[in-house]
Amino acid sequence: MNNKENLINLRIKMQENNIDTYILTGFDPHLSEYKTAHYNTVKFISGFTGSNGTVVITKDTANLWTDGRYFIQANNELDNDTFTLQKIGHKNTPTYINFACDNTPNNGTIALDGKTISTKDFNTISKLLSLKSLTLNTELDLISPLWTSRPTITNNIVFEHTLNFSGVSTTDKIKSIREKLKEKNCDLTAINVLEDIAWIFNLRGSDSSECPIFNSYAIVSLTDVVLFIDESKIINVKNYLSKLNITIKPYNYIYEYLKNLNDVNIFLKPSILNYSIFKNCKNLNIVNSDTNISEDLKASKNEVEIENIKKSTIRDCVALVKSIKYIKENIQNQISEFDVTGILTKYRSLQPNYLAPSFETICAYNSNGAMLHYSAKKNDCSIIKPSGFLLIDSGGQYLDGTTDITRTISLGNLTEEMKKDFTLVLKSVIAVSTATFIENVQGAKIDMLARIPMWNAGMDYKCGTGHGLGYVLNVHEGPSGIGSTLSPIRLNMLLTNEPGVYKEGQYGIRTENTMLVSKSFESFGDTFCKFDTVTFFPIDLDAIDKHLLTESELTWINDYHKKTFDTLSPYLNDDEVAWLKNETKAI
Amino acid sequence: MNNKENLINLRIKMQENNIDTYILTGFDPHLSEYKTAHYNTVKFISGFTGSNGTVVITKDTANLWTDGRYFIQANNELDNDTFTLQKIGHKNTPTYINFACDNTPNNGTIALDGKTISTKDFNTISKLLSLKSLTLNTELDLISPLWTSRPTITNNIVFEHTLNFSGVSTTDKIKSIREKLKEKNCDLTAINVLEDIAWIFNLRGSDSSECPIFNSYAIVSLTDVVLFIDESKIINVKNYLSKLNITIKPYNYIYEYLKNLNDVNIFLKPSILNYSIFKNCKNLNIVNSDTNISEDLKASKNEVEIENIKKSTIRDCVALVKSIKYIKENIQNQISEFDVTGILTKYRSLQPNYLAPSFETICAYNSNGAMLHYSAKKNDCSIIKPSGFLLIDSGGQYLDGTTDITRTISLGNLTEEMKKDFTLVLKSVIAVSTATFIENVQGAKIDMLARIPMWNAGMDYKCGTGHGLGYVLNVHEGPSGIGSTLSPIRLNMLLTNEPGVYKEGQYGIRTENTMLVSKSFESFGDTFCKFDTVTFFPIDLDAIDKHLLTESELTWINDYHKKTFDTLSPYLNDDEVAWLKNETKAI
Repeated sequence: MNNKENLINLRIKMQENNIDTYILTGFDPHLSEYKTAHYNTVKFISGFTGSNGTVVITKDTANLWTDGRYFIQANNELDNDTFTLQKIGHKNTPTYINFACDNTPNNGTIALDGKTISTKDFNTISKLLSLKSLTLNTELDLISPLWTSRPTITNNIVFEHTLNFSGVSTTDKIKSIREKLKEKNCDLTAINVLEDIAWIFNLRGSDSSECPIFNSYAIVSLTDVVLFIDESKIINVKNYLSKLNITIKPYNYIYEYLKNLNDVNIFLKPSILNYSIFKNCKNLNIVNSDTNISEDLKASKNEVEIENIKKSTIRDCVALVKSIKYIKENIQNQISEFDVTGILTKYRSLQPNYLAPSFETICAYNSNGAMLHYSAKKNDCSIIKPSGFLLIDSGGQYLDGTTDITRTISLGNLTEEMKKDFTLVLKSVIAVSTATFIENVQGAKIDMLARIPMWNAGMDYKCGTGHGLGYVLNVHEGPSGIGSTLSPIRLNMLLTNEPGVYKEGQYGIRTENTMLVSKSFESFGDTFCKFDTVTFFPIDLDAIDKHLLTESELTWINDYHKKTFDTLSPYLNDDEVAWLKNETKAI
Repeated sequence: MNNKENLINLRIKMQENNIDTYILTGFDPHLSEYKTAHYNTVKFISGFTGSNGTVVITKDTANLWTDGRYFIQANNELDNDTFTLQKIGHKNTPTYINFACDNTPNNGTIALDGKTISTKDFNTISKLLSLKSLTLNTELDLISPLWTSRPTITNNIVFEHTLNFSGVSTTDKIKSIREKLKEKNCDLTAINVLEDIAWIFNLRGSDSSECPIFNSYAIVSLTDVVLFIDESKIINVKNYLSKLNITIKPYNYIYEYLKNLNDVNIFLKPSILNYSIFKNCKNLNIVNSDTNISEDLKASKNEVEIENIKKSTIRDCVALVKSIKYIKENIQNQISEFDVTGILTKYRSLQPNYLAPSFETICAYNSNGAMLHYSAKKNDCSIIKPSGFLLIDSGGQYLDGTTDITRTISLGNLTEEMKKDFTLVLKSVIAVSTATFIENVQGAKIDMLARIPMWNAGMDYKCGTGHGLGYVLNVHEGPSGIGSTLSPIRLNMLLTNEPGVYKEGQYGIRTENTMLVSKSFESFGDTFCKFDTVTFFPIDLDAIDKHLLTESELTWINDYHKKTFDTLSPYLNDDEVAWLKNETKAI
């Protein structure tokens, strides 16, 4: 069956069940960024394969919401006769929630799977319901009966992330969580975020191709720790878990477990908790919070993690030197954007502790680079030529770190405008890299540093400047980032710094380093911090117009390149050292 | 009776009513910054007279919360045997809400007047209640029976703020509100914020000494407009209101009115709505929002308001030239900080359209300046001497504008450190004044501009950089400001720019201008904005170390001073012109 038929069948099911509007949020029960095929219901109904898609189906309309990364892809993949593309971020695009409520008749019924929506979004919908006397059904799964060949939930085996990698034992992590619970007068917390569970238990898995997580839920209380996971996944860590006194229950038993609790105070963060869990806590005393204990603890890296991050990032940059050198030297050989992904993966996989790419590589030549998260397909992508810009955003998962780096490579024949824009991006990178800021500064304030040179030049990029970065976990990690957020940037957080210029139809430029937050000095009772850049890779000198840099910016780039050479050259052969020497020469 | 006896009597009343914890939030039913004596229940119980005080009384403890402006004053005014001072902003200070819940026994009862707490704060309390099975009583007024000489609610007469001052008619304002209501699928909104009511109806009053508001409530629906106000207040505007088809109801009737409504959608902003109003809407379909229609509309000034703001600010600065000249020339004559207030008010009152001071003048000599909102008392304040810094933060209410300006005046013998700090503040002022920023930038981002020079010098001030400024209304106006907020800064907003350095026991430095947001240019589809400074008054040249300024900063200060001279000199006599010439000479 094709998507069109699936949609027709869904509408029949909707009618049978008296459903006016059916919502597919596009999430799994863990609200993961990277979900497994089992949860790709949006693709099943619409054909859209991007990572961010939400579908609202009414009797007469079918709409898909996605963001700027996927507008072109969605246009290609959707059947334009049946589906309307709703462009997130555009001025007149309604939220899917408002659209669903507005387009359901008075006294009608909206249905969705309550496991696939955050409690926060659910609350937004329920606030609107009463305005039109709508009913919301969160129990109805209309997709499974239609999807006869639905993939099963991934069920790979987990392994221990030993103390030399994790740095802090699970016992100590649970102790820290319990201290926070006591501070908040709470007895327990329930966790559906897979990265947090992997962090707490010092376990890793392979249920997602981008992030070493494993399907599970967890409850940490003042007295017990329960891991909800299929027995077959933990055969290699049974001993480890039993020594820790962790109770194991079946994966989906958490809902039942919570329903049977009584008279306890539970600490929950509605924005990252699926609604079905929340619903099963309704008999408990719920403390809703904007913070989540494990998310907060995980974000500040420990000493072992910090040392490992520095080491694994160097290895990642070494792999990148080999890759970029190869590409630059073979530019005449009809390398495609898709080929580049293979070259990067090959060189990364030769490095110790390598696991997998940390996300789908973005390799975008010239105008493709203007699409924020372009994805080159094997049989539908550009061949790289010795002219213009090649933007490469990639990263690796290692046993001792997760990396994320972007460089925009000059392939020759750059115009003055291209160099000016490249240098502008560099100015923004430097402004953030050299910042002095007070401890716990809000992300929005650091974001401004990157915007100053941009806005003075009449430019803006429509995304944040940087995001939190996981440790052997997701490349995107909360709660803090450099963007439109008041979340505090705390000591030992790992963040990316990636401003850009995107000119539709022409080119995209992004330079991305990762940085650790460290203490700089104390003054008048306040602690001031700085960023320590841990990524060492040349920023293409051929694309820099040095006359646009101030003296201190010029000093920064020369210092950065000297340090890059000193850091990477011990790991390179003579030929590579010579190449790197030239790429990092003082200007 | 004194406060101590009042507290004893309150505890007797608490026991009679089975109340374990009694909260006095310190607010009136409009959650006003400036409240009338009738609502000064915190003073009645504690003796504390500052504008920000919240009291929590239990069987054994009495605690008062206030902020850094009032720590010293509170220490002096509170009876330290009975009251504990809770310093807001200090690391280990609990919120009054957490404290009240933590210090009430299990199954106990907390009481407060529901009219004096925002719905948002009420919701925070109610979330915590279930954790200890506490009961919250919002109907109990234990103060009135004790306070036999309680002042009545102020009931002054209102007047029309005619179109030459207001710029947009009430009919048009109501039309705009209705359009927004329709967009939000709502039938009506209820308003308890007095500034919003004054703005909507183009009326002003004198129920507060700092802000020309009048006690009232309002409801704007798609079909009706109801003003809840005592008849005696509107004798001069009866005709005006009846022509507008506005229904008049008694002041306190809004609660009954809302309770009797049925089956309508009401739009409310919980953070600025008193809980009793919210409670009376419980049968309605409530749309809770982070925004408020009239607050948002009011914040962007109209063309007439903008022209008037410019004119009234010039007159205000003229009055300040006369005042500061007088003070500087009479420095040997034992002028006290308190005297300065009188001098300022005298010169301001000679200006056309003058109504009153827009807030209590802060005149703080040397170390007093380090207290953020120091208040000089007639018989307890410093005498100004020809040495050090004099910080003066003051403003006026005019029929055509509200002003707010701070200057720190050098009285001689400044140390290098003092000049360095003064110049640092100037650098922060200039950084904000010269900003180029995208339309609807978040306040936190602009705040960063002022922090960059500060943080690089290892300094920080513990308050925002600026606030929204009302038009013939409150000097502090929401929803936007330059501080730790994501609220967007929109075109035609009026904001202050007031970074500072505060060194305890030594001195305080603050330089404050007001600025209008205006369009700068368009580029790649985005609108970029700038600030137009409307305050023109010399920044003391004796305190500037010009060697610490960059070339462009030097150009800014010289241009600013030239413009200040050109703008103000037509309104000054020869003697004053000569004085201003010297104060604004190029450096």
